[in-house]
Amino acid sequence: MIIALLTDFGTQDYFVGALKGVILSINEAAKIIDITHEIEPQNIKSASFILASVYQTFPPQTIFVSVVDPGVGSARRAILVETDKYSFIAPDNGLLSFIFQTQQKFRVFELTNSQYFLPNVSQTFHGRDIFAPVAAWCSKGIDSQEFGKEVTDFVIFDDTRPKIIEENLLEAEIVHIDHFGNIVTNLKKEDVKGDFALEINGIEIAKNLSFYAEAEIGEVFTIWGSAGYLEIVANQNSASELLKTKTGEKIRLKMA
Amino acid sequence: MIIALLTDFGTQDYFVGALKGVILSINEAAKIIDITHEIEPQNIKSASFILASVYQTFPPQTIFVSVVDPGVGSARRAILVETDKYSFIAPDNGLLSFIFQTQQKFRVFELTNSQYFLPNVSQTFHGRDIFAPVAAWCSKGIDSQEFGKEVTDFVIFDDTRPKIIEENLLEAEIVHIDHFGNIVTNLKKEDVKGDFALEINGIEIAKNLSFYAEAEIGEVFTIWGSAGYLEIVANQNSASELLKTKTGEKIRLKMA
Amino acid sequence: MIIALLTDFGTQDYFVGALKGVILSINEAAKIIDITHEIEPQNIKSASFILASVYQTFPPQTIFVSVVDPGVGSARRAILVETDKYSFIAPDNGLLSFIFQTQQKFRVFELTNSQYFLPNVSQTFHGRDIFAPVAAWCSKGIDSQEFGKEVTDFVIFDDTRPKIIEENLLEAEIVHIDHFGNIVTNLKKEDVKGDFALEINGIEIAKNLSFYAEAEIGEVFTIWGSAGYLEIVANQNSASELLKTKTGEKIRLKMA
Repeated sequence: MIIALLTDFGTQDYFVGALKGVILSINEAAKIIDITHEIEPQNIKSASFILASVYQTFPPQTIFVSVVDPGVGSARRAILVETDKYSFIAPDNGLLSFIFQTQQKFRVFELTNSQYFLPNVSQTFHGRDIFAPVAAWCSKGIDSQEFGKEVTDFVIFDDTRPKIIEENLLEAEIVHIDHFGNIVTNLKKEDVKGDFALEINGIEIAKNLSFYAEAEIGEVFTIWGSAGYLEIVANQNSASELLKTKTGEKIRLKMA
Repeated sequence: MIIALLTDFGTQDYFVGALKGVILSINEAAKIIDITHEIEPQNIKSASFILASVYQTFPPQTIFVSVVDPGVGSARRAILVETDKYSFIAPDNGLLSFIFQTQQKFRVFELTNSQYFLPNVSQTFHGRDIFAPVAAWCSKGIDSQEFGKEVTDFVIFDDTRPKIIEENLLEAEIVHIDHFGNIVTNLKKEDVKGDFALEINGIEIAKNLSFYAEAEIGEVFTIWGSAGYLEIVANQNSASELLKTKTGEKIRLKMA
Repeated sequence: MIIALLTDFGTQDYFVGALKGVILSINEAAKIIDITHEIEPQNIKSASFILASVYQTFPPQTIFVSVVDPGVGSARRAILVETDKYSFIAPDNGLLSFIFQTQQKFRVFELTNSQYFLPNVSQTFHGRDIFAPVAAWCSKGIDSQEFGKEVTDFVIFDDTRPKIIEENLLEAEIVHIDHFGNIVTNLKKEDVKGDFALEINGIEIAKNLSFYAEAEIGEVFTIWGSAGYLEIVANQNSASELLKTKTGEKIRLKMA
C-alpha cells in the first residue's frame, strides 16, 4: 500500500524522518513515496497546486498525506477525504479544495478517534502525532468512518479561475514558479480562444510555442505546460528571474 | 529490514546514490529510508540532535547509518552500537553520544572485519566502502560481533545540559535552527519551574504559548517543541531571521 | 526490480512525484531509488559524471532513468541502452557517453513504440510521459526491442580527457564541484606520474595527501577522490569558495 507524502517540512530536520518512522512502526510493509517536502513554508495554495497536478499519476488506493499546517494546535480540524480511487489526509484548511471542486463523489471524515493517534499528541507536530499514524492505520485497512464522523462543512478556497475584465481581456494570476523558473499561470486552454498576448509587469509576450527548443536560447515565450496551464518560460533560462515575478502577481491576457 | 540514512552528503552528488546502490547490491530486499542528508557539513552535534529526536519513532530492528565524518581516513574508528531495539552504525566521533548517555544497555563494536567492507576501501568515502556494506550485512542477520571486537572507550561529547549561573538563572544554548527558522534550545521541561523569561541578544522573551496560531502573525514567543526542548518561534515567520541567531549561541533563562 | 532516478527536476515541484506515480501505476512492485534530482538545470555533462560515478554500485538488472533534457519536444531521440548488467533510459543527448566509451557490449534502442508511453504525450514533460512508463514496462520484463528499433548513430560527447600541452605539462578541466566544495578534475591516476603540482587561477598546489584530516584545518591540497579523479579540497572548508572556481574552468598539471 502506497503512502505519498507532501509537506513544507524541508529535508534538513527530523520532521520527515519522524513521519516515516511512525508510519513504518504501525505498518512496516507500507511503501512510502516522497512527492515533495519543499512546499514554501505555510503556503497552502502552492501545496494544493502541486498535489492537484500529480495525484492522478498514482495507482488506485494510494493514501496522500499532505501537511502544510500553519493552524496546527488550534481548532482547525484534521480530515480524511475518501474518493472512489484515493484517500487524502490533511488539515482542513483548504489544501484539498481541488478535490471538492472537481470530484463528483467524495466523503469527508473528521479525525477525532485518538485510538489511531500517537499516545501523546503534541500541539505543534500533528504530522507525526496524528496524520502519519492515521495514514498508516488507513493503509492497514481501517475503515474511514472509524477515524471520526463524517462532516460536510469543510474549508474550500474561493475559486481561483481568471476574471473576465472585458470581452477578450482576462485578469489571471501566477500560481506557481517551478524549479526551472517557469511561471505557471491559472489560465487553462478553455479560457483562451484564438491568438493571444500576455501582459506581465508592463511587458507583452505574444509568442506561443510548443516546446522549449523551438525558441532562441534565452527567449521568453508562453507554452501550454505539462500540468495543463499556460506557462511563461525561457529557453534554457529562468523566466522568473528575467521578468522578476513572484507567486500571486496578476497578469493580463488579451485575445485577438 | 529497514536501513535509515542520516548524512551531511547533500543530495546533489552521487554520494547518497552510492550508499543505496551498495546496500541494495548486498541486500536487495533492504528498505532504505532517508532521514536527512542535509546535516550542516561536518556538524556532528547537529547530526546527533537530529538522530536523537527521531530514532524512537522507527520500528524495532531498524539499522541507522549516520555519516558525518570529518576524520574519514584517519585513525578514528568506525563503530556499530547495538541496543535492545536498534543498531547504529557511525564513525566513533561523538555522534552517538545520546545513546551512551540515555540507554542502560548497549554494546559497541569496532568495525574492523574487512570481509564485510567493499573490496577496495578508499580513504575519503567510508560511507560507501565501510558503513553501507556493514549495514547491509547487518540487515541480512550477520551477528554484531562478527564485524569486530567489542570496545568500551568510545567517544562521548561532554554533557550539553544548561549551566546553573545562580539560583533561578540558567545559561542555555541554541542547539539547532530548523527549516522554519524555529530556534531550538537545550532547555527541557525539567530544567524550568514556574514563570520564566529568555534573554537572547539583549532581547527578553517572556511569552510562552502552546501553539503557533495562538500568537499574532509575526509575534516572537517560546513554545515547548515537538522534540521536547524549549523553542523560540514566531507565528508564520522565521524567529531565527528576526533575532539573527545561530547554532551554538548562548542564551539566558530567568525564572520568577 | 530497482528503478533508479537521476534528473535536474529539483525537489520542490510535482515533477519527481509524477515520475514515481506513473512508474507505480504500471508496476506497483517497482523499487524506486532517488540518485539525485539536483543536477544543475540542463547540465548534461554533470549528469553524465554523476551517473558514471555511481551506477556500478547498483545490483544487476537495475534500470536507470536519467532525465536532463533541454531538447524535450524537439527531434532529439529518446533511447534505451542495454548492457550485460543494466538498462539505461535517457534522451539521446550525450548523457550516456560514458557507457558508449567504456562498455564493450551494449545495444541502443530508440523509444518509438507509443504503446508503452502515456496515452497523451506532452511536448514538455517526456520524463512523465515517455521515460517513466518505458522504465516501468522494462521492469515488468518487456523486451528492449519492443520499445523501438536498434540504432547505432547515438550522440557521444567528444572525449574529455586532459590535453598534453608539452612533455610533463597537461591541461585539465574542472568537471564537477560537490556539496562540500571539493573540486573534481578530469585527471585520473593513469594521467600522472611522479610528483606533480596543479596550477589553478595563478595559485600552485603541490601538496597531495591521502585523507582530509592529514591537513591543517582550512588547508588546500589535492587528493585522489572516491570517484577515481584528482580533487582539489580543503580540510573542513570549501576549496571551491577559497579558490573561486567553477565547472568547466581549465587547470594545469606540471609533473616533475
